[in-house]
Amino acid sequence: MDITAKAAAEELKCQDRILILSHQNPDGDTLGCAFALCRALSSMGKLVRVECPDSLPQRFSYLYADCVQPDFEPEYIVAVDIAALQLMGNLREVYGDRVDLCIDHHPSNEKYAAKTCLCSAAAAACELVYSILCLLEVTITPTIADCLYTGIATDSGCFKYSNTTADTHRIAADLMEAGANYRWTNEYLFDTKSKSRIAVEQQVLNTMEYFCDDRVAIIGISQEMIERTHADESELDGVSAIPRMIEGVQIGITIREKPDGTHKISIRTTSEVDASSICQRFGGGGHARAAGCLIEADYETAKEQLVSVCREFLSA
Amino acid sequence: MDITAKAAAEELKCQDRILILSHQNPDGDTLGCAFALCRALSSMGKLVRVECPDSLPQRFSYLYADCVQPDFEPEYIVAVDIAALQLMGNLREVYGDRVDLCIDHHPSNEKYAAKTCLCSAAAAACELVYSILCLLEVTITPTIADCLYTGIATDSGCFKYSNTTADTHRIAADLMEAGANYRWTNEYLFDTKSKSRIAVEQQVLNTMEYFCDDRVAIIGISQEMIERTHADESELDGVSAIPRMIEGVQIGITIREKPDGTHKISIRTTSEVDASSICQRFGGGGHARAAGCLIEADYETAKEQLVSVCREFLSA
Repeated sequence: MDITAKAAAEELKCQDRILILSHQNPDGDTLGCAFALCRALSSMGKLVRVECPDSLPQRFSYLYADCVQPDFEPEYIVAVDIAALQLMGNLREVYGDRVDLCIDHHPSNEKYAAKTCLCSAAAAACELVYSILCLLEVTITPTIADCLYTGIATDSGCFKYSNTTADTHRIAADLMEAGANYRWTNEYLFDTKSKSRIAVEQQVLNTMEYFCDDRVAIIGISQEMIERTHADESELDGVSAIPRMIEGVQIGITIREKPDGTHKISIRTTSEVDASSICQRFGGGGHARAAGCLIEADYETAKEQLVSVCREFLSA
Repeated sequence: MDITAKAAAEELKCQDRILILSHQNPDGDTLGCAFALCRALSSMGKLVRVECPDSLPQRFSYLYADCVQPDFEPEYIVAVDIAALQLMGNLREVYGDRVDLCIDHHPSNEKYAAKTCLCSAAAAACELVYSILCLLEVTITPTIADCLYTGIATDSGCFKYSNTTADTHRIAADLMEAGANYRWTNEYLFDTKSKSRIAVEQQVLNTMEYFCDDRVAIIGISQEMIERTHADESELDGVSAIPRMIEGVQIGITIREKPDGTHKISIRTTSEVDASSICQRFGGGGHARAAGCLIEADYETAKEQLVSVCREFLSA
């Protein structure tokens, strides 16, 4: 059943012994929602705790470090920012069929909960949690504001991504006034790169090649680079965004070597070119502007095959 | 004389044949202010045009491309985002002593105009122009919204810099609702890098060295790199920000070769270290977190001298 933010607030008001679930590979939005809601409901005198299928990332420790997590048998279960049961990881088996309320912003939400409060226009689920907390009339403390600001800033790329709306900005303004430590948060989350990210960026930029009148840019990531720089998945993912960011480049390609010597291809395009169609030629797929495929060949051969298909798409 | 936004609006209401001046090396904020104000005052039936001491940058052509610029003898002169007369370049001689109104947000504004409307809390002068246009009750067209959004987004680093306030966000929200093409603007301004920027980044990352337990990071930019990559000043400036962005780095240093073989040093620090004090040791100066100096020595010598002083500051 779909319910409004007002109905979700009414529901939460009556409950106690509340367990809040965040999704696997937790990001700023799911953690921001979970710990903002946990702190707010605790301040109302309820027993509340958060569970996450994976260990909580150190990067976001400022959201949860001082949040008391009491032990109790849950009577009411809330899932935040979880679009589908499979994103619950190992918690799916324990709680998957008894989620009472899901608070989410993904249009693809699978409505697995008894009640779903969905706002698919929101850049972050934290926007919706903010509305619910306002309806609950709890005080937005600086720490709660930090949680919600973090979720909104991370999911909107610090207000840069196209999912950002006027409401996203207005809620951020409210949270800043409520005491969110936004200066520190912005510098920490958006102006800091790890040494390994810088190292892999350096290695990868050295492989940059342009084709088709500079409308195609290709970078390569070898196993040796990954081992040498200790770059993790999110760092490698960040690097893959570089080729398409270059002025005039319509197709940005990352060719990444897999341990077995085959190559995983990631293609990002501007609106003029369909990344998914290019990847389909190699048995892959994805979205119009970001897609992927696998090529069972060495780096040079993979590159030649990709350039040849890109040339065809660009001249079409 | 200092005046309020309301008084500035009253003043503008009564004037005609208005010349709007932007500062030299024009950025998004000065151009956003100038062309938003120009369009708004034109829509009130006034004769208005914009003059800039330098040629208008192609990068911001979407702000001015279709803006009619009539020829007339100016009766009223408005300076926007110009903190001091020396920023007027070649227009200083013609108009410097007859500026009627200055609309600005720099705390350092030298009050050279007959009347100054200053809001030093604003991240961008465009925030103040927005307030004035609201007081003038002119329609904020999508094009005017584009101008103002561009000024606000560029001066606030797309809402990431510490000068961003709750008001910055609320005005951005209003402008998005007024039709600002913010999705395109954000991608164009903040998710695009020139080929020369990528090229100089590649060259410069290859020079990255760490010292003092990775608390100091140093990069070098040689004359040869600048010539080979055709990187311009703003691109070189952007690259200089990289060392300090690295996690754990407290002092980020860029050593840039000058044509005469001496080296220009740019130092950026985290809040724990005073960049200005370090640079003073070499006869330079600046701000607490960004400062500069000149070292008349070769690259290796300059680097050694800098590391030695940094070690001293970090152990203090």
